[in-house]
Amino acid sequence: MNNTTTASDPTDDATITERKPIAAIATPVGEGGIAVIRVSGKNAIEKVNEAFRGADLIEKESHTVHFGKITDAQGDVVDEVLATLFHAPRSYTGEETVEISCHGGVLVTQAVLETILALGIQPAEAGEFTQRAFLNGKMELSQAEAVADLIHAKSAKALDSAHQQLEGRLGEHIREFRQQIIDATAMVELELDFVEEDVEFANREQLRELLAELEEEIDKLLATYETGRLVKHGVRTVFIGLPNAGKSTLLNTLVGKDRAIVTEIAGTTRDTIDVDWSYEGLRFILTDTAGLRETEDVVEAEGVKRSQKAFREADLAVYLKDLSREPTAAERKDIARFQKAAGDTPFVLIGTKKDIALDLEDERMDYDLKISALEDEKIAELKKLMKQRALENKHYDASSLLVTSSRHRDALQKARQNVQSALQALDQGMTGDFLSIDLRSALKDLGTITGEITNEDILDSIFSRFCIGK
Amino acid sequence: MNNTTTASDPTDDATITERKPIAAIATPVGEGGIAVIRVSGKNAIEKVNEAFRGADLIEKESHTVHFGKITDAQGDVVDEVLATLFHAPRSYTGEETVEISCHGGVLVTQAVLETILALGIQPAEAGEFTQRAFLNGKMELSQAEAVADLIHAKSAKALDSAHQQLEGRLGEHIREFRQQIIDATAMVELELDFVEEDVEFANREQLRELLAELEEEIDKLLATYETGRLVKHGVRTVFIGLPNAGKSTLLNTLVGKDRAIVTEIAGTTRDTIDVDWSYEGLRFILTDTAGLRETEDVVEAEGVKRSQKAFREADLAVYLKDLSREPTAAERKDIARFQKAAGDTPFVLIGTKKDIALDLEDERMDYDLKISALEDEKIAELKKLMKQRALENKHYDASSLLVTSSRHRDALQKARQNVQSALQALDQGMTGDFLSIDLRSALKDLGTITGEITNEDILDSIFSRFCIGK
Repeated sequence: MNNTTTASDPTDDATITERKPIAAIATPVGEGGIAVIRVSGKNAIEKVNEAFRGADLIEKESHTVHFGKITDAQGDVVDEVLATLFHAPRSYTGEETVEISCHGGVLVTQAVLETILALGIQPAEAGEFTQRAFLNGKMELSQAEAVADLIHAKSAKALDSAHQQLEGRLGEHIREFRQQIIDATAMVELELDFVEEDVEFANREQLRELLAELEEEIDKLLATYETGRLVKHGVRTVFIGLPNAGKSTLLNTLVGKDRAIVTEIAGTTRDTIDVDWSYEGLRFILTDTAGLRETEDVVEAEGVKRSQKAFREADLAVYLKDLSREPTAAERKDIARFQKAAGDTPFVLIGTKKDIALDLEDERMDYDLKISALEDEKIAELKKLMKQRALENKHYDASSLLVTSSRHRDALQKARQNVQSALQALDQGMTGDFLSIDLRSALKDLGTITGEITNEDILDSIFSRFCIGK
Repeated sequence: MNNTTTASDPTDDATITERKPIAAIATPVGEGGIAVIRVSGKNAIEKVNEAFRGADLIEKESHTVHFGKITDAQGDVVDEVLATLFHAPRSYTGEETVEISCHGGVLVTQAVLETILALGIQPAEAGEFTQRAFLNGKMELSQAEAVADLIHAKSAKALDSAHQQLEGRLGEHIREFRQQIIDATAMVELELDFVEEDVEFANREQLRELLAELEEEIDKLLATYETGRLVKHGVRTVFIGLPNAGKSTLLNTLVGKDRAIVTEIAGTTRDTIDVDWSYEGLRFILTDTAGLRETEDVVEAEGVKRSQKAFREADLAVYLKDLSREPTAAERKDIARFQKAAGDTPFVLIGTKKDIALDLEDERMDYDLKISALEDEKIAELKKLMKQRALENKHYDASSLLVTSSRHRDALQKARQNVQSALQALDQGMTGDFLSIDLRSALKDLGTITGEITNEDILDSIFSRFCIGK
C-alpha cells in the first residue's frame, strides 16, 4: 500500500488543512456583466484585504458581501468589486475563501487577478479548488469528478447523471458494496486467528451467497456503463452515402430547429463536419463524412482517412441512399461492405428523397425507413429510430444511476475480478488467507472510486481534467 | 422638449422605482467553475425563495450569502447554489436583487436560468440591469456607457480610459461646462424680464469672455476624441506589399511573443486576416491584406475588394518592400499610388529582409526603417515607429481624460456650435432672447452626455450595445 493515502472522513470537518492561498478566475473566460475571482487558502481574507478599499474585511463575518475597490501597489483603482467572505470550514474548499466579483471583461478580470497574484498568492492549477475540497473531506472523489461532468454536460441526460453522482448516489452504492465485503472479510479473517485449530467460523455457503450477490450487483452497475458513456459523451453518429444522397440536407433538417444549441466542435477538421444535436435529452454528435471511398487524389485521400476513422469510432452509422436513382451494383456492394464493417455498431439504412422516388418494385434493398426532408413526420420517425438503435441492447432507464466514467468502470471490473477470484477460491476449498487477499483487493478497488483509497497519480490525472478556477 | 425626460438626481436614493423582476446570466457564456445569474426587481427575493431550498431568504439580511438548492416545479434539484441578497437600494440596479452562483457549465447555467424564469420572471434584455441603475440614479449615463467600455476593453489604455469615465471624470467636466452656461443664461435671462426698459444687466464683455473660455475648453475635450477612438477601438493597421515581402513573417514576429492575447477577430473573412496586438497598452488590429492589386480572377477579385476596404478604413498603413529584390518600376509606382491614396492616414515604408538585402546604392526609395525579422532591435524600433506614427498630431497624454464615444463627440460638437452661435449673436448685438435660445440648446446638448437630458431612443440605442446580463 505504498504511495496510497487514506482520505479523511467526508463528514469530519475537523481535518481541514489550510494550504497556501491560491487564486483563479472561476467564471468562464469572455465578455459578460461580471466575473468572479476565487481566492482560497490560509489567510486569504487578510491577503485580499491588503488590496481592498471600502471596508476592513478582516473584521467581517462569514457569508457577507462588501462593496469596495481593488487597488494595485501604486494605489490605483483596478476595478470596483464585491468581495464575499467565507470563513473555514464553511466554504467550497473548506478553507478560508474570498470571492471577488468584478466587471466581466477579459482584460479587466485579468487585471484584477494579476493584482491579487501580486500580493504573493499563487495561481490555482486546474481543478485545484475542487482537489482541496476533496482533500479536506468536503466531498468524495466521485462527487468531485461529478463537478467536472456537470460543467461539461452537453445534454439534459448528461446533466441528470452528473447530478446523481454529485449527490453521492454512486458513492452510496460503493459504500454498500464495501460494507458487504468488510462483513465477509471479517468472517474469513476471524478464522485466521484460529488457523492451527482448523476451525471454519465462516459459514461457507452464506459467504458464497453474499459474494455471488455482490458480483451480480457490480455487474448490474457495470452494465450501465455503455449507456453512461453515450449519455456523457454523446452518440457519435456518422452519415454515409454517395454525394448528393442528401446528407447535408438531413443534417440541417435535424439540427435546424435547435440552431441555437448547435455548435461546431472545436478541433475537428473541415474534412468532416461535426455538429452537436440533442434529442429527448440525449446528445448526438453528427458527422457528415465528406468521402468514404478510395481516391487517387492526395488531399482527398486525407479526407477519406478521417472519414474512415469517424466511421470506426462511431456509435451509430446511418447510410443514406437516394431513392430517386436506381442503386448501382457498386452501391449495393458498398452498402453491404459498410454494414459488415459496422460489426456490433448499429447500422441504419435510410432511403432519402422519398418525394421524388423512382417507382422500383424490386429494389432488393432492405430500408429501415424511407424519408423526405420535407415530411416532418418521417423526420420525427427517423429521430426516434436513431435514439432507439443507438441505445438498443443497452440499459437505459432515465431514473437509474449510470456509471459514466471509464475510471469507475475499470475499478468496478477489477473489484468484480477479485470477487470472482474469491468465489473460485471458495469452490476450490482454499483457506481463509487466500480469500482474505482477494477480498481486501476488491475493497481497495472500490475505495478508489470514492477516494477512500487513493494516490497522487490518480488525483493528478483526475483534477487535471478540470478547468482552471474550479 | 417633447419626448425628453429629466433623469433623477444621481445622489437621491429616494427616487428608486422597483420594476418587474428580470433575470439573466451575468457571467460570460462558456465552461467555468461557476456562473452567476442576476435577478433584480420588485420582490426578487420572494420570487427566488420559491425555488430555493436551504434557507428562508425572505428573513435574511442584505449582503448575506446562503447555500442551498434551486429546485424546479417538480421539486427536482436543478443545482446546488449560493444565493447572495441585496436589499433596495443597496444593489447595482438600486432594486431588490438576488445573485445566484451556480456551477459554471453551459447547460446547467441555462437550466437554473430557466427555472428562475419559470417563476414568472422576465428574461432581461441587453443592458437592462445597467439601464435600471441609470434610471434609478445609481450612475450617470456616461458612467453607464463606461461599464460597457470597461467590459469590452481590448488594451490597458482602453481599460484606463473606461475607468476614468466610470469614476465620473467626464461627468465632472460636463457639469462644470453646464454650470458656466447656467450662470451665463441667468445673466442673460434676467434682462428679459426688463426687456421693455432696454436694460443690459449682463456685462457683455464678461459674457463673451466666459463663452470664449467655454468654447476653448470644449475644443480641448473634443481634441482628445481621435486618440480616444484609437485607444478604445484600436489602431487599424494594414500591411501592404508584394507577395513574399514578408508580411506574414512580420505579423508573426510582432504578435508571436504575446501569442496568448492574440485572437482572430470574429466575423472577418479569411481573405484578410486580422489579429489583435497590444503595444505599450495601445491596441493594434493588424490586417494582412491578401492582395491589393487588380486581378482577373473572380474569387480573388472579392479578396482585393476587401483588402482595399481595409486600406481605406486603416488608421495606419505599413508598406513592406523586400530589400533582397530590386524594386521594379511597377512597384515604385505602386508605392507612390498607395502613399497618395493614404491621404491623411499615416503611411510607413519599411524595407524587409535587411539581412539578405541587395547592395543597391541608388535605390531611390525613402524607407522609414529597414528591418530584418531576425533582429530584435529593429523590430523594437518598428513597434515604436508604429505607435508614434499612429498617434502623431494627436493629443496623447496617458493621465488625461479622453473622449472615446462618438455620441459624446457629437454632443460636444453641437454644444460648441451653440456656444459659437451665442458668441456671434453677442457680436451682432442681438438681444438676450436670441442668446438665451443658443445657451439653452448648448445646455441640453451637454445634458445628453450625462443623461440629465435624455429620451427613450437614445437610451435604447445605448443599452442595446450592452451584453445580456449587464
